[in-house]
This record gives sequence, C-alpha cells and structure tokens, in this order.
Amino acid sequence: MQKPSIPKGTRDFGPAQVARRQHIFNVIRRTFESFGFAPLETPTLENLSVLTGKYGDEGDQLLFKVLNSGDFAKDVTAEDLATGSKALLPKVAEKGLRYDLTVPFARYVAMNRGTLTFPFKRYQMQPVWRADRPQRGRYREFYQCDADVVGTDSLLCEAEIVLMIAQVLGGLGLHDFTIKINHRGVLRNIYQALGGEGRETDLFVAIDKLDKIGRDGVTKELLERGFSAPIIETLFELLGVEGDYEEKLARLLAGFVTAGVEPDGTRPDDDNEEAAANYRGLTELATVRDLLVASGFKQFDRLEFDPTLARGLSYYTGCIFEVKINNVQMGSVSGGGRYDNLTGSFGLPGVSGVGFSFGVDRLYDCLEALDLFTATAETPTRCLITHFDGASGRAALPLLAQLRAAGIPSELYPDATKLQKQFKYADAKGIPLVIVLGPEELAAGVAKIKIMASGVERVLPLAEVVAALTV
Amino acid sequence: MQKPSIPKGTRDFGPAQVARRQHIFNVIRRTFESFGFAPLETPTLENLSVLTGKYGDEGDQLLFKVLNSGDFAKDVTAEDLATGSKALLPKVAEKGLRYDLTVPFARYVAMNRGTLTFPFKRYQMQPVWRADRPQRGRYREFYQCDADVVGTDSLLCEAEIVLMIAQVLGGLGLHDFTIKINHRGVLRNIYQALGGEGRETDLFVAIDKLDKIGRDGVTKELLERGFSAPIIETLFELLGVEGDYEEKLARLLAGFVTAGVEPDGTRPDDDNEEAAANYRGLTELATVRDLLVASGFKQFDRLEFDPTLARGLSYYTGCIFEVKINNVQMGSVSGGGRYDNLTGSFGLPGVSGVGFSFGVDRLYDCLEALDLFTATAETPTRCLITHFDGASGRAALPLLAQLRAAGIPSELYPDATKLQKQFKYADAKGIPLVIVLGPEELAAGVAKIKIMASGVERVLPLAEVVAALTV
Repeated sequence: MQKPSIPKGTRDFGPAQVARRQHIFNVIRRTFESFGFAPLETPTLENLSVLTGKYGDEGDQLLFKVLNSGDFAKDVTAEDLATGSKALLPKVAEKGLRYDLTVPFARYVAMNRGTLTFPFKRYQMQPVWRADRPQRGRYREFYQCDADVVGTDSLLCEAEIVLMIAQVLGGLGLHDFTIKINHRGVLRNIYQALGGEGRETDLFVAIDKLDKIGRDGVTKELLERGFSAPIIETLFELLGVEGDYEEKLARLLAGFVTAGVEPDGTRPDDDNEEAAANYRGLTELATVRDLLVASGFKQFDRLEFDPTLARGLSYYTGCIFEVKINNVQMGSVSGGGRYDNLTGSFGLPGVSGVGFSFGVDRLYDCLEALDLFTATAETPTRCLITHFDGASGRAALPLLAQLRAAGIPSELYPDATKLQKQFKYADAKGIPLVIVLGPEELAAGVAKIKIMASGVERVLPLAEVVAALTV
Repeated sequence: MQKPSIPKGTRDFGPAQVARRQHIFNVIRRTFESFGFAPLETPTLENLSVLTGKYGDEGDQLLFKVLNSGDFAKDVTAEDLATGSKALLPKVAEKGLRYDLTVPFARYVAMNRGTLTFPFKRYQMQPVWRADRPQRGRYREFYQCDADVVGTDSLLCEAEIVLMIAQVLGGLGLHDFTIKINHRGVLRNIYQALGGEGRETDLFVAIDKLDKIGRDGVTKELLERGFSAPIIETLFELLGVEGDYEEKLARLLAGFVTAGVEPDGTRPDDDNEEAAANYRGLTELATVRDLLVASGFKQFDRLEFDPTLARGLSYYTGCIFEVKINNVQMGSVSGGGRYDNLTGSFGLPGVSGVGFSFGVDRLYDCLEALDLFTATAETPTRCLITHFDGASGRAALPLLAQLRAAGIPSELYPDATKLQKQFKYADAKGIPLVIVLGPEELAAGVAKIKIMASGVERVLPLAEVVAALTV
C-alpha cells in the first residue's frame, strides 16, 4: 500500500486557505476591472519553442518540460544518450509549463495582432511553474497576477499602476507599505553624469544588489567591473539625494546640470512645463506625480522616488516600480515597469507597454503574519440544521430550501445521529448558526436558533426564521 | 523569427471568453457553496505513483508526464533505451499533470484523514490534462467542476445532487434538460432476474453502450459474451419498462418478484415504508424521489429514472446520474454517482461517498449554441471618458476616480488623439457609455454622455454624472 504524498514545492489548499486566497484574488480582480483591464487566460502547456531563450540560461533550466506522449523515446539514438540530457531534450519533449505570464501574453498579442484593439489592457491571474529549489516563500507552483497595457506610451498608465497598488493593498487591509518608483532614464542620466556611456546594464545590475549586499558590496563589484573610486563616490552622491519626491527630482536635476549631462528631450505630448527640465526620466517622474495629484491620490507618504531602485530585468526602459510591506519581513509583493519591445521575439516589433504584477503567495503570507484574515471557516455554510430522526430531518427540508433561496448557504446534517455530534460538526467547521429542529420544536411549530460564538439561543416561529436571519 | 503557436488541444481565452467562462464558474460555485460544499485546490503536479494505475491502461497512456529537472537522463542506460519508452519512463519522469479531480481528492482525504471533519463536503474547479487526440469538444487541457460528500451514506446527498444540477442549469438559462438517474443495485437485480451472478460488470459495460450502438449492437455484444437470446430478450423487457418514475419502479418491482430475485434488504436508516419493497436499488431511488418532493422540487418532468443508464466506471455502487441538454447536439454535461471505496488505494479503506461533476467546456458550447450568453464585451469597462488634449484629459481625472469609487469600471482614453479614434475604441471593446469631456464641456462645467447602443446623448452638469450613472 503506497503512502500518498505531493511533489515538493507544491501545496494542497484546504477550504479555509482557498477562501483566503479567493479573497486576495477578488480584491485584485475587482481593482484591475475597475481600471478597465480585461481578463486573459493562456494554456498551462506552451511549446518549448515559445518559452526557451526568454528567461536566460538559468530560466531555461528551471522550465518544467513535458514528455512527448506515446513512444517518446523512438527517435533517441545511443549517441544522443551518450551526449547527455541537453542533446536528448529536443527529441523527447516539445512542450513545457508556463514559467511566467509575460511571455504567454507577448505570444498572444503577436498571434492575435490582427484582431486586437489597441491600447490593449489585459490582466491575467494564473499559476506558473519553476523547477526552483523550494524554500520558505518559494514554491514550484505559484500564482502571478499581472496587468499590462500595450500600445500606448501615456504616463497615465504609470500613475494608474500606483493607484491600483494602493487600492489593492488598502483593500486587503495592508496600510504600512512603500511603493518605490524610479525611471531607467534617471539611472542612465546618473551613468552619464559619471562620464560613461553604453555600459548601463552593468551599472543597473550592480545597483540592483544594493539592498542585499550594501554600499560596500556594490562598491567592490563596481571596482571589479572597472569603475574608478571617484566615479563610484559621485555615483553614491547622486543615488543618495535626500528629501521628498519633488526635492529629490530637483536635486538630481541640479546634479545632472552640474555634471554636464546632455538633456535627452521631453516627451512630445508632455504639457507639464514645470517638470524637471529636459531629462526624460525626471520629467516623466514629475508628470506621474502630477497625474496622481490630479487623480486625488493622497498617499504620497507611501510613494517614494528611490534612485537606487534598478530592477534587474533588462527589458525595462521607463518607469519601474517595486512594493514592500514595511511591518513584515518579506521581499517585494509587487513590481513592474515600462518596456519598449514586448513582442519583438515573436515577429512583432515596436509594441511598447507598461505592466506590473502581484505575488499572491507573498501577499497571503503578509496577511497571515499580520493576522488580517477574517475568513477562518472550513466551509461556506452559515447555518446547520440539526435533527433527531428521519421524520424531523424530512420536515426540515422546506426550511433548508428557503434558507438557500434567501442566499444563506445552509446544510441539513445528513445522518440521524446524536445532537452532540451534529454540534461538534458545526463547531469544527466554523458554522456560525445552528438550528435545532427536533420533535418538540416541530410540534410547537418553532425552531431553536443557537449563535455558536456567544451560545445565545432564540426560539422563533418556523415561519419567521428566514426573515430573522436575513435582516 | 519564429511564428508563435500553442500546443494542439489547448486554447487561449480572450476577454469575452473568460468573462463567459467566469459566469459559468460563478453559477456553479454559488450553487455548490449554497449547499455547504467547501472549496479545495490540489497541485497541478502530482507524483506519478499517485496517478498511475488509477485510470486503466488507456488512462496511464493519456497521462502527461513531466521530465525530472536537471540532468534527467543520468540514470538511463543503453539497455533501457533498447527496451523502449516504457522502461525509460520511471527513470526520467516522476511527476505528471492532474488527470481528473477524483484521484487528487482521494489522495488529499487519505493524507489528511486525521484532521478532516466528516462528513466532508468539498468542491473543486480546476483544469485537468489528457494527452487525448483533440477533436470537436475534446481538449487536452479542460476544466472539471466536482462536488463530493464523503463519510455519510445519507440519500439526502443524492437528492441534493439533483437539486444542484437543476439549480446550476436553471441559473445558466438552460431549461430543456433531462437528469437521468439509475442505481447500480437495479442493474444488479436485473442481472439476477436473468439468472446470472458475478458478471455484472460485463453487463454494465455492454448496457453503457446502448446509446451509441443501439439495441442490436448491445445484443450482438452480449451474445458474444455468452448470454443467451431468451435472456437478452428478458433483459430488454426489464430495461424497457415504461411510465413515469414511480410507475417504472413499480413495474421493475413486479418484474423482480416474478423472476424470483431475492430481496437484498432496505437500508438501516430508511424510514420510507412505502418504498419499493426490499430491493435496495428501487428503495433508494424511491427515497431520493420522496426527499425531492419534501424539498419542494417541482421539475419531475426533467428527472428520468432510466434503467439503461449504466455509466462505465466500475467504482460506482449506488445511485448514478447523467445529464443531457435536449435542444443541443452534445454529450452529457454532468454525471456522477455513489461509490463505496474512494481512498482504498491510498491505505484508507471504507470511505464511501457520492459526487458529481460538471463539464464546463461542454456547458460553454451549449450556451453558445443556444445564444444564451449575455456578456459579449471585450472589457469590463462600462464607461470611457474621451478628451481632446492633455489639459482636458487631466481635468477628467477627478471624474474618473469618482466613477471607479462608485463601482463603475471606467477608463480615460490614455492618449490625446482624434475623438473618432476614441469612439472607435469604445465600439470595438463593447464599452456601453462614452463621456465626452472637451474644452467646451469643461468651460460649461458639463459632460456629454453618449449611450453607444442607442446613440442617445445627454448633457449633464459634471457634478451629477456619477449619480446619474449609478441610479
């Protein structure tokens, strides 16, 4: 007899967990839809030709590959076997499991370019799979919730990302958060202020580690990459500007002017004359802030312009975002940014857009750590009808039907058994109300209602029960 | 440049399709929860040791297997390769994709036996994968929606399955349906009436094909299996009893008595003295009907006792169900039954229960064939605000925030472009309302609202727009 188990890095979600996760999904979905994002779902299985090469070498290794069906080994030769797994792979597997939601979205846009109306705003909430080493907060099967707009470069999209993040976190009861925002143009200007050109990526990658390895670590890495000590000094001066959002913009502007960085032009449709002159990154960050003010956004104490935010992924080209919950020890729960070329590798160049993602599993862990979940019941049932025998059970059926019709999820205990056992069932499942309908109650035409949390009991005429519970 | 594609038998679901599918899921979920079923989710990846051997040889071949990560071929020898795929498989793959929801549920119950409260009522709505040959209505990735109760043999569960099926189909606007019900005990009694014993399964399997191969085909198959012509004649007499639900019960009872079939006893908790004597199948079917009457069920014209219903799966032991939509050419959209031993293969014998399943993809096709979907929009957005330039766009932001706060999913067209293009966007996405907010309107403190379906326009003071749209 086998002892059953589930693969490492995967989880079963019992009733209470599913209810809590659904709560998170609902808040995110409601917010996305309120902002006009439409749902998209793509298959779990994608062709490996679509997935491979999109996530770097490490990503390719973390892809779950699916064996071809039927006689999968029929084309494998002894030489293939001798060469090893890498040579074998293309002969035995042509499909893999979704690794993120961005590549399938890009594939979808490229495949449906002819029928989509742009700007195209889509959200997607689906699981992804990575053959990563499982550890605390890292799973092999986990959910992402992405929202992207493609086909417009309006900065309204960036402002609305901030609004959506604040709305989702507020909706979940998370109030102590920081939305960090930066712009790849700012990082590029900083790099130009150092007198360099063309090696921004090196710099972004090093700065991205500031959080983890600190200033000393980054300094060491930059020295190794050939940057000089005075340059690194200037770098940290610029990265370390102090003040609020607008003060930092002004100080960086002064720093760029002093360093002789050439302006790179405003955006053609930008009408914010007072924005931070002609450096695109600073201008756009100023515009995003203005749009937020105009939208009635009030939480500027939770929006931090952080010139050290780099986000490793090299495809970002404009604003970038990252969100932390401050009162929990946890990595970022959301992040994203603007990119210039989503679908280029699928034959459709020039599709730019901006998007962001929530990590549901991390949000779940934050809410649990802060004890913010209210739903703890093991069942949706609000009301259990108990009974004594077949006759009183049968007499309860009309009431059961009325309760359900009134929108109150309800159960009749299915077996005629001791009342104590039926109450124990309600207790174990977290059912808040128990109706006792025994021979006595039936004879008197009443029902006894017990509120489980307080132990309070009320006796009501049978005909008034539903009305009393729906008030 | 690669041309992107998706694996055969899989589908992308665009916004309108997701919205329609969500509608189906919502109706099913609401019904399941109203009856006290709690949600469960299990991982996509299961160990092959859990899946293999549960679905027959054909099922094993249709399982999608996932390559072990890393150097998957390291243990494969030249001899393995020479022996073929079957010998190779255990060395290169130890995980597979979920094939149905029943085996993972059984695995879950067995693994969590110590903490679950029984009766345990769970529903599960998740995709499953089968490496089947794709064809119309058959996909390699598709959703199942299951609800099961384990740990009770109360026939209330059977009655509630009928109620739930009727509620879901009614909720979807499907009214011309037939719920077929039968009982494995009836089939066994019929078999006994033929003078046989011990080869029920042969009979079930043959009868199960009646729909497809007709009476002649079944006759031929039974002759081949060694049943005599007079016996087959009696068989079809019993299977062909006419009348309504109760008449068929009475006529079968008479047939069993005449044939000298020994009664197999009533259920211990059955208090329905008038039920069809002591044949368990007939008794239980009568009790289910009585419970439905007591529950206020009115659709007995849609509930058919069909003694020919067999359902191939051999693990059913009591009532069995199957549901057809009559005015659409389509296989069954729902089915299920009672089983005695769900978790035996996982070391937990004696867990009996009853469950059923909806096929979402078939329901979708029925609703589409009958033109019953109301949601056709490509976006959740109810209201698009159009504008002329940065200034009027910015001036629209407070209204945009108010609309969203009032629960009206809304968008501001992100770019300042021709009004015509903005209207075209609303039209293509199926957005029902467009608000025009140009310099003229702003100067006058009004907004023009156009109802896209009728073309009717209204001009309202800016401050009254939200109230007018939320009435």
